[in-house]
Amino acid sequence: MSEKMNIGVDLGGTTTKMALIDDAGKTIDKWAIVTNTIDNGSHIAADISESIKKKLKQYNLGSSEVRGIGMGAPGFIDMASGFVYKAVNIGWEDYPLKEELEKFTGLPAIIENDANMAALGEMWLGAGRGAKNLICVTLGTGVGGGIIIDGDIVHGVSGMAGEIGHITVVPKGGSPCNCGKKGCLETVSSATGIRRMGLDALDYNDSDSILRDLFEKNGDISAEDVFNCAAKGDQLSVAVAEKAAYYLGYALGAISIVVNPEKIVIGGGVSHAGKTLTDPLTKYFKEFSLPRVFDACKIDIAQLSNDAGVVGGAWLAKTKINN
Amino acid sequence: MSEKMNIGVDLGGTTTKMALIDDAGKTIDKWAIVTNTIDNGSHIAADISESIKKKLKQYNLGSSEVRGIGMGAPGFIDMASGFVYKAVNIGWEDYPLKEELEKFTGLPAIIENDANMAALGEMWLGAGRGAKNLICVTLGTGVGGGIIIDGDIVHGVSGMAGEIGHITVVPKGGSPCNCGKKGCLETVSSATGIRRMGLDALDYNDSDSILRDLFEKNGDISAEDVFNCAAKGDQLSVAVAEKAAYYLGYALGAISIVVNPEKIVIGGGVSHAGKTLTDPLTKYFKEFSLPRVFDACKIDIAQLSNDAGVVGGAWLAKTKINN
Repeated sequence: MSEKMNIGVDLGGTTTKMALIDDAGKTIDKWAIVTNTIDNGSHIAADISESIKKKLKQYNLGSSEVRGIGMGAPGFIDMASGFVYKAVNIGWEDYPLKEELEKFTGLPAIIENDANMAALGEMWLGAGRGAKNLICVTLGTGVGGGIIIDGDIVHGVSGMAGEIGHITVVPKGGSPCNCGKKGCLETVSSATGIRRMGLDALDYNDSDSILRDLFEKNGDISAEDVFNCAAKGDQLSVAVAEKAAYYLGYALGAISIVVNPEKIVIGGGVSHAGKTLTDPLTKYFKEFSLPRVFDACKIDIAQLSNDAGVVGGAWLAKTKINN
Repeated sequence: MSEKMNIGVDLGGTTTKMALIDDAGKTIDKWAIVTNTIDNGSHIAADISESIKKKLKQYNLGSSEVRGIGMGAPGFIDMASGFVYKAVNIGWEDYPLKEELEKFTGLPAIIENDANMAALGEMWLGAGRGAKNLICVTLGTGVGGGIIIDGDIVHGVSGMAGEIGHITVVPKGGSPCNCGKKGCLETVSSATGIRRMGLDALDYNDSDSILRDLFEKNGDISAEDVFNCAAKGDQLSVAVAEKAAYYLGYALGAISIVVNPEKIVIGGGVSHAGKTLTDPLTKYFKEFSLPRVFDACKIDIAQLSNDAGVVGGAWLAKTKINN
């Protein structure tokens, strides 16, 4: 098996990112196209294939020099068949993505859930480099997760493994979650949850606060505001950041007792808080894991940002497509 | 690879169980010897080997007809080397178990933690038959666990994966655990924890109760008493059983969101409570998992009892020793 090229594709609701990455992990090119969701997303596979073919021509790459395509899509996917059961933002329902992509490009393809693909990207070339047992957490609008054991994503029996945003962390009196339950991790440690807790704290507290000044100026606050103010020592913001970190540390403690990872990679918008997040997080993670589990595990901020998906896709092509 | 014999060995602090099981899962013989822990357990490997050799002679089995030995030991084990770092009840410290066993028997051996081995036994011939993604929980003096993904035990980076008895389920005001933390699952859902909660309930409650009658007669109660009385409708006992099931369901909900198993197997003494345990457990498991996770997963009581270990050992020999 000589060195070949791998294509990573990361499908989003508005743009589709792509990259051409060699076996050594060097990015030859990366680019993006608009995701055309009209007609229930029926043009997407052809658009992506056209763009890939153009790019391969530009680099004079024949199909024998390309291993294949690793593509991530939002929604629920059956990896074995490459079938997308439902991807609401895209318009797909029961869509044979792998088959379509292979037909249009003539290249073998492998399909994965986008959050898992980003986790694989961080493992290959990002914060998880060199590790084979990882928990990846994305703290954005929601809380996503990817569990990697011995270098492979854990999918579980119905593809639900790693949906850690829905671990209950506030069993009594928790806030409602989009999933229909209450008190999920997502309700307290996502950007949405942190904003809500910040607003609550302003409501139930009269103390002077630079977070309150921001709220009065802008009519709203964001999770970023909370962490920025916390970093400046604002007590009210520190308390909110601590609470978000407490619940995240609690959940990661439990998950780590289950899988005993060597690394936890924190990504998503909230991860930009850096040490303002990871310092209290590490404290609570230590409290809720076990000494041998804590000692074996390092918490790091994700490094690849928006490229994690395409890198993970290329890794899937490199490792899962045998040609 | 033709049909061969497999030897399972399950080392306990007082007796060592052994079994001769063929590739089809048929138990040809099972027996036990006393575990001789004097001289820091230095006679154990020779004793076991002697007993195995005698048994193979009895059945006229040459070494070419035997695949090897799968042995479970308590304590912390490095599976790759078959090295036992520490097994307090046995007296071993930094003991090369695999090497000794192979030297004395002339057969290849594979070593595993005893709780994990029991989980593999239930997967092969017990309640987990046919499943490849399982959570096994042993509710005894403590709470043990084994996580199986794609047919293999998850060990984690420092061999701590599956130590689910130490997931925190009472984050504030929990009882002290042997591990040094507070509020671990083991403090509320083990036989020890259920007895303690039963005694507390009797202390803080004046109501008539057949559990109280038992306590006054015997001067103590057991977890078994609590479930027996609960099965008879004793309100105080029902409340304690519900509490144990609530915390177990809470932990299993979280673990199942992480690994999305097809089966949860409950073993150990407390599992004899049957539906008095599993009915409330299922209710809380549903509350704390996700619909797609819950729907894909069945909760069953372990079937192999004390034989789970030797069966798991034979399975390890059958599947991990290539000869």
